Amino acid sequence: MNQPATDYRPMWTALGLDLEGHDALLSAIPVLYHDAYLTQTSRPEGMGYFDFVMSEIHGLRIKELVDHKAAGGTVVGTFCLYVPEEIIRALGGQCVGLCAGAEWAYGEVERILPQNTCALIKSFMGFKLGKVCPYAEACDLVVGETTCDGKKKAYELLGELAPVHVMELPQMKRPEDRVLWRTEIERLVTRLEEVSGRKLTAENLARAIKEVNDKRRALQRLNAARKASPVPISGKDALLAVQVAFYDDVPRFTAMVNKIADELEARVAAGEGVAPANAPRVLVTGTPMSVPNWKVYDVIEKAGGVVVMEEMCTGSRYYSKLVDESPRDTAGMLDALTDKYLDINCACFTPNTARLDDVIRLANEYHADGIVQCDLQFCTPYQIEATSVGRAAQAAGLPTLRIDTDYSANDIGQLSTRVEAFLEMLE
Amino acid sequence: MNQPATDYRPMWTALGLDLEGHDALLSAIPVLYHDAYLTQTSRPEGMGYFDFVMSEIHGLRIKELVDHKAAGGTVVGTFCLYVPEEIIRALGGQCVGLCAGAEWAYGEVERILPQNTCALIKSFMGFKLGKVCPYAEACDLVVGETTCDGKKKAYELLGELAPVHVMELPQMKRPEDRVLWRTEIERLVTRLEEVSGRKLTAENLARAIKEVNDKRRALQRLNAARKASPVPISGKDALLAVQVAFYDDVPRFTAMVNKIADELEARVAAGEGVAPANAPRVLVTGTPMSVPNWKVYDVIEKAGGVVVMEEMCTGSRYYSKLVDESPRDTAGMLDALTDKYLDINCACFTPNTARLDDVIRLANEYHADGIVQCDLQFCTPYQIEATSVGRAAQAAGLPTLRIDTDYSANDIGQLSTRVEAFLEMLE
Repeated sequence: MNQPATDYRPMWTALGLDLEGHDALLSAIPVLYHDAYLTQTSRPEGMGYFDFVMSEIHGLRIKELVDHKAAGGTVVGTFCLYVPEEIIRALGGQCVGLCAGAEWAYGEVERILPQNTCALIKSFMGFKLGKVCPYAEACDLVVGETTCDGKKKAYELLGELAPVHVMELPQMKRPEDRVLWRTEIERLVTRLEEVSGRKLTAENLARAIKEVNDKRRALQRLNAARKASPVPISGKDALLAVQVAFYDDVPRFTAMVNKIADELEARVAAGEGVAPANAPRVLVTGTPMSVPNWKVYDVIEKAGGVVVMEEMCTGSRYYSKLVDESPRDTAGMLDALTDKYLDINCACFTPNTARLDDVIRLANEYHADGIVQCDLQFCTPYQIEATSVGRAAQAAGLPTLRIDTDYSANDIGQLSTRVEAFLEMLE
Repeated sequence: MNQPATDYRPMWTALGLDLEGHDALLSAIPVLYHDAYLTQTSRPEGMGYFDFVMSEIHGLRIKELVDHKAAGGTVVGTFCLYVPEEIIRALGGQCVGLCAGAEWAYGEVERILPQNTCALIKSFMGFKLGKVCPYAEACDLVVGETTCDGKKKAYELLGELAPVHVMELPQMKRPEDRVLWRTEIERLVTRLEEVSGRKLTAENLARAIKEVNDKRRALQRLNAARKASPVPISGKDALLAVQVAFYDDVPRFTAMVNKIADELEARVAAGEGVAPANAPRVLVTGTPMSVPNWKVYDVIEKAGGVVVMEEMCTGSRYYSKLVDESPRDTAGMLDALTDKYLDINCACFTPNTARLDDVIRLANEYHADGIVQCDLQFCTPYQIEATSVGRAAQAAGLPTLRIDTDYSANDIGQLSTRVEAFLEMLE
């Protein structure tokens, strides 16, 4: 990964970035990326696209977004799977994930958020306060949701720094909750129509539903190949594909992922893999991992294991379910979106036993030898649900390792020791 | 406070308590109570009732509940203001607050809940796992609510140990949220009708609404007297009144509190107080304090300050608003309950700016010289909202001290130093 050839500094200045801080951040990512990604062997050739995307993560893609805005489009930032990208796209918007995966400006953050806030929230708040995220600065609107106490209350403070719209996600999945969620979907339409100056139509919504479903279908293909032994792609590379899905151009991303899926299917047919057939196969489940948070995957795969599937928001929860494409009118499509998005099995719901079923089913389908539960420290919903996941895994005869961590590198040594012992047990 | 004369051990055994653990717990409370309460001077005579209640906290009151059950009544445990006591009472139930204010069985608790869980949740789970709470063991049903991530997910695990019904509290207060909350009230009625074998009627509900409003009116009277200078009752004693309100017999409690209010009004007329007129007056706001958690009040009042009001669930949020008594039919009464309970300004709502208004208004009405924000560590909603409360106080020219604490005694020395410095600043 080389430094981009183009000088993006005038663009970053125009976006209001703190150039000095941004330089420091940008210089750190290639080192992390090289160490985690470019040291891998037998990578699929198609991953070259992601190497390029990562080298231009704050460059070319931001220029595309800036050009998109100049042409009358909008950019909408999100932090969570529950915000329907389809509606954003139907109204001429580009949806970008703003979850951040690195520690930044924690000193400033801890003046307004408690020290015991999860790393994801501290990180996005730090990126915003430190003005180092061109995605955040390019947004016409940020759409939050009430998925957890930390985000729900942090959005109130974020709202002082940027225009924020919060969707109220219900906490159960009964018919009355669906009614509430349906009104939230409509409220989002209204807000985005105001921001974009456009009107939602059956045509633009149908097209957007198809586009985003195509992205999901491509990711489903890529990930289906991971059932094979030997596995044709590392867990780290599969994770990267989903991480990039959150902010890349949708049709281009879909085409590139389908190309990688072609390559993986050929590899599977030829019995080629990135790890020996007897490498311990791991399913990862827990809280999302945003760029550049590759820590636990890197530890697992450098220790000789291979991550074959992830039941995570940066994983199966992102792509495994499609929006019903059969409705022909806007109301029917909004119904379909309501159902699809309420059907994500996040620990913010009570009860959330369907997630336990997903974890065990995926572990079996992907022939996992064990499960690594990886949760962000202070993420109360996932940390408490980890007890139930652990019990379900035990009942299914699947060994589990529980990791509670953050974005720092301080625990890598300790994690490596624990992961190595766990993988030995799986062999 | 003496040991109760009656031998309650057969009753405790019948309830399934761990007698050894329970003995240890029960022996600790009188010491704490003596040190915090019985060392006070110029206490209102009426507080003798609470001394008696505290001496029989696991004795006489439990016997009343057991007798109530034997006579065909039910006992329903709650953790939160949002559960309508009126419905429980209308259906022949006694409502008891189960929030616990002491560390118990944390070793067992931390096997199923993360270490970074707030003390209130750890405490109630520890009391249940350790079988030391006769209130919890006497319950026919426990009614939880989705007010925070920690409780929401902990109820799933509590549900394995006791019958639990969870009410979904919405996270905003718009008309569509009221619709959801109204259905939750009805769902509670259905569940309690099943548990009690009784039917809700306009008669029994009207009577219960009147009884619980009378309790609130008595507490309003008691607390209104605290506006006077010198203040006629300590903050600690006023806190105790609300703490006891959560589990005492309602009509008896109301009568006793009205008696204390008579006494306080006479004191005010006579210019008598429990603290010098120039003692720094403090408003406390934050997370609830359950028996035997009197730590911060004790620190403030032993340092020469006096707590004149609390914007807390064990404070103004409990009694300041009444249920509308004008509806004559059940549906109208359920509407009134829906409105009243949704109108509590908990940090679980977003936005929750009405709480900021309450804090400043109460500080002014009660002539507070400063505000102590006291939140449980790991209580994300209140800890993040503390930033907004601090800003509102600053804008109103009110000095604030922020305390993040738990139920341990470890930080008393440090808290005393900080509180003394704060009170000096207020003088």
